[in-house]
Amino acid sequence: MNEPVLARLQQLMNLREEVETLGSARPWTPAADWIDGDSHLILLLDVPGVNLDTLALSEEDDTVTVQGERPALDETLGRVLSAERSSGKFTRTLVFPEAVLPQSGEARLSAGVLTIQFEKRHPTIDATAQELGEETES
Amino acid sequence: MNEPVLARLQQLMNLREEVETLGSARPWTPAADWIDGDSHLILLLDVPGVNLDTLALSEEDDTVTVQGERPALDETLGRVLSAERSSGKFTRTLVFPEAVLPQSGEARLSAGVLTIQFEKRHPTIDATAQELGEETES
Repeated sequence: MNEPVLARLQQLMNLREEVETLGSARPWTPAADWIDGDSHLILLLDVPGVNLDTLALSEEDDTVTVQGERPALDETLGRVLSAERSSGKFTRTLVFPEAVLPQSGEARLSAGVLTIQFEKRHPTIDATAQELGEETES
Repeated sequence: MNEPVLARLQQLMNLREEVETLGSARPWTPAADWIDGDSHLILLLDVPGVNLDTLALSEEDDTVTVQGERPALDETLGRVLSAERSSGKFTRTLVFPEAVLPQSGEARLSAGVLTIQFEKRHPTIDATAQELGEETES
């Protein structure tokens, strides 16, 4: 299966989890992207309205867990008429798509998007650049 | 039905829309909350990673439409391994839960959350405060 289909399946799995928890507290599963940047892996997570000081990152073997919390709707603003936006704590555990150096994660939060960059244990060598280099030598 | 159940049903309707569009471009429907603040209505929308200059607000009769766009993943960052986060344009049309004054919407964007405040046509009178006032007068 190609990547878009896999991503869709992951979405459906998340949807199923959400439907199964319909009777309990509203589920809160931030969407995530993984990017391979040759020397590093980049994890992007949508966490709108989450304060930086609630965010925590932990690594164990081949997984990374991101935890955080979005405050509940401020009741001083008024009476809630309808609420689709999730609030409260979230925990998301993801498997690293490639081995990374332990504790190499560097996080930043901007416009509600959390970006975490990890150093890859085995950086991808840019074959094109190497070939060009060999050509120059000969 | 109480409000949490209604919110759940709205979620399920959104999920159904998402499942139905599984073959096409990834759906992108920002979650929304409505709050009644006595003299105004507040609309909150989760739009992480959306730039302010792509956002547009339009009102027609009893509905408000919010449009915006999130840029696709920056390919200069690297190769996309998996992508759950939606990108591209979104359009969300919502019915005002109460009549508002035309063109009274004031928007601000913070931490990926868009907050739009509208002036209510018929502000809610705070009965408690009035009663207290009458007591003081007597």
